Amino acid sequence: MNEKTRTSGVVPPEVALGFDGLTLLKGMIAGEYPPPPIAETLGFGLVEAEPGRAVFEGSPGFRHYNPIGVVHGGFAMTLLDSALGCAVHTTLKAGEGYTTLEVKVNLVRAITKDTGTVRATGRLIHRGRTTATAEADLRDAKGNLLAHGTTTCMIFPAKK
Amino acid sequence: MNEKTRTSGVVPPEVALGFDGLTLLKGMIAGEYPPPPIAETLGFGLVEAEPGRAVFEGSPGFRHYNPIGVVHGGFAMTLLDSALGCAVHTTLKAGEGYTTLEVKVNLVRAITKDTGTVRATGRLIHRGRTTATAEADLRDAKGNLLAHGTTTCMIFPAKK
Amino acid sequence: MNEKTRTSGVVPPEVALGFDGLTLLKGMIAGEYPPPPIAETLGFGLVEAEPGRAVFEGSPGFRHYNPIGVVHGGFAMTLLDSALGCAVHTTLKAGEGYTTLEVKVNLVRAITKDTGTVRATGRLIHRGRTTATAEADLRDAKGNLLAHGTTTCMIFPAKK
Amino acid sequence: MNEKTRTSGVVPPEVALGFDGLTLLKGMIAGEYPPPPIAETLGFGLVEAEPGRAVFEGSPGFRHYNPIGVVHGGFAMTLLDSALGCAVHTTLKAGEGYTTLEVKVNLVRAITKDTGTVRATGRLIHRGRTTATAEADLRDAKGNLLAHGTTTCMIFPAKK
Repeated sequence: MNEKTRTSGVVPPEVALGFDGLTLLKGMIAGEYPPPPIAETLGFGLVEAEPGRAVFEGSPGFRHYNPIGVVHGGFAMTLLDSALGCAVHTTLKAGEGYTTLEVKVNLVRAITKDTGTVRATGRLIHRGRTTATAEADLRDAKGNLLAHGTTTCMIFPAKK
Repeated sequence: MNEKTRTSGVVPPEVALGFDGLTLLKGMIAGEYPPPPIAETLGFGLVEAEPGRAVFEGSPGFRHYNPIGVVHGGFAMTLLDSALGCAVHTTLKAGEGYTTLEVKVNLVRAITKDTGTVRATGRLIHRGRTTATAEADLRDAKGNLLAHGTTTCMIFPAKK
Repeated sequence: MNEKTRTSGVVPPEVALGFDGLTLLKGMIAGEYPPPPIAETLGFGLVEAEPGRAVFEGSPGFRHYNPIGVVHGGFAMTLLDSALGCAVHTTLKAGEGYTTLEVKVNLVRAITKDTGTVRATGRLIHRGRTTATAEADLRDAKGNLLAHGTTTCMIFPAKK
Repeated sequence: MNEKTRTSGVVPPEVALGFDGLTLLKGMIAGEYPPPPIAETLGFGLVEAEPGRAVFEGSPGFRHYNPIGVVHGGFAMTLLDSALGCAVHTTLKAGEGYTTLEVKVNLVRAITKDTGTVRATGRLIHRGRTTATAEADLRDAKGNLLAHGTTTCMIFPAKK
């Protein structure tokens, strides 16, 4: 566990809420915070963040296989959910929070251990005061579409 | 790798297509096939299967955490996707196949490492000749609803 | 306009917010308020409401046809959206409001002018302080499933 | 009814299947076929079609109102469903057919009778041999986003 906490971890809320979302995400990319445990467990991570856009990359392998010999749909969903949520996260001001209410994902091509690095790009569609929506796609290195999705998030205003 | 393939693996298509779906899933529960790699990686597995219904159990832990200190939504999505797909899988005759076209998941309560064992139950809604739909919920041991979802699957007829 | 408002209309917010949701919906069924304009335009209406459950009935006809000779999917979506929203509406206390953030609908059987009366039943899945989810199905008089869906709603707390 | 059938109608399958999808849709825009009944009933119509893209326009009014005094969500869903389906329809070769399996819609701003003409633009995301997906948005004349959605369609191959 000690070794684990050296290589992955979470960001304490009091730290996270002290920054606007984009600054926090850029800090993660810069390695100022450890990667989250799920990223270690499944093999993916945040690689780009700008206003209204976030990109994750992952490496599908045998450890992601379902019983029928391809990567489990949950791998694509996890990357898309990350990209969708972080596209919204980039829009948060310091003190604001968010939660994902729902995610909808279409799986359009099977992913295998030979697919190579995949890239999930999330883009903001709508940002209101209390809700936000975003879309994301998952592509291989050649740009072939593997999966895509949308999300609905709720925004928590900063506490005065 | 050798050790890995002793403890997890996939079912070859020629084996899978030789059984109806329910027999195959019951064989998995009985341990006649190794658990799939994703089940080892994320810590969940199939525990019940009957016509039009499949149940998975999982153990959320620190290794599933996202940066903000709760279990990543992808964990719930992976269990729900499994329960949804297998509820459809139970309806397949020998030689039939299926693929998941889309999954939609609502996340209604945060999951933490203290949530304990969670249970995803998938139930068939509609089974046509070429499509099927199902619903699933994810609950903790007390029955509290954590997440729920639906899926659309395509059925591949048996080759004559 | 005067004639119109005699046969259909809307409920002023100050009236709507003065009742809990179930009382308001029961008043609509009892004819204490005119049916809403959309119900007249498309031919459907609320027929049952109880805590966490609402039922609409509609009469598909030629006027709902799309170019390819069956009832447009929008008819099923409108009835399901109504049943979903009202299932949530039944849970509102006086002063609370709600809005539908998203609806997802599966269309499983074609509807024609010969389908007869159809019935959309909405059921609450989750009711939190600020969000709610519900599911609904649309069936013909024999109980055949025509379409089904889920929704995510946001709840507005009563103003103090 | 006679008058009705002069001003709206459906395209017989043997006619529809004789054209590729884009030619058929362009014929509808050119007025070679009557507008479908649902378009008359709800007040909207197809205005643009090109490969992988279709645009509908509609005029929200009092007749679309729900009980709480804004346009019913079913109006936005019907226009989005039309734009989504027709974006897929533009990709069909002569003899191919399609059906909509599911539609998911986010409603991001209320529509009223003062919103003015709204425009639903559907765009193809993925076209495989047997399935297709598309996305659509609904905007007012100033480009403000009112609603958006995605669809999953099944393609029926041409009969040999």
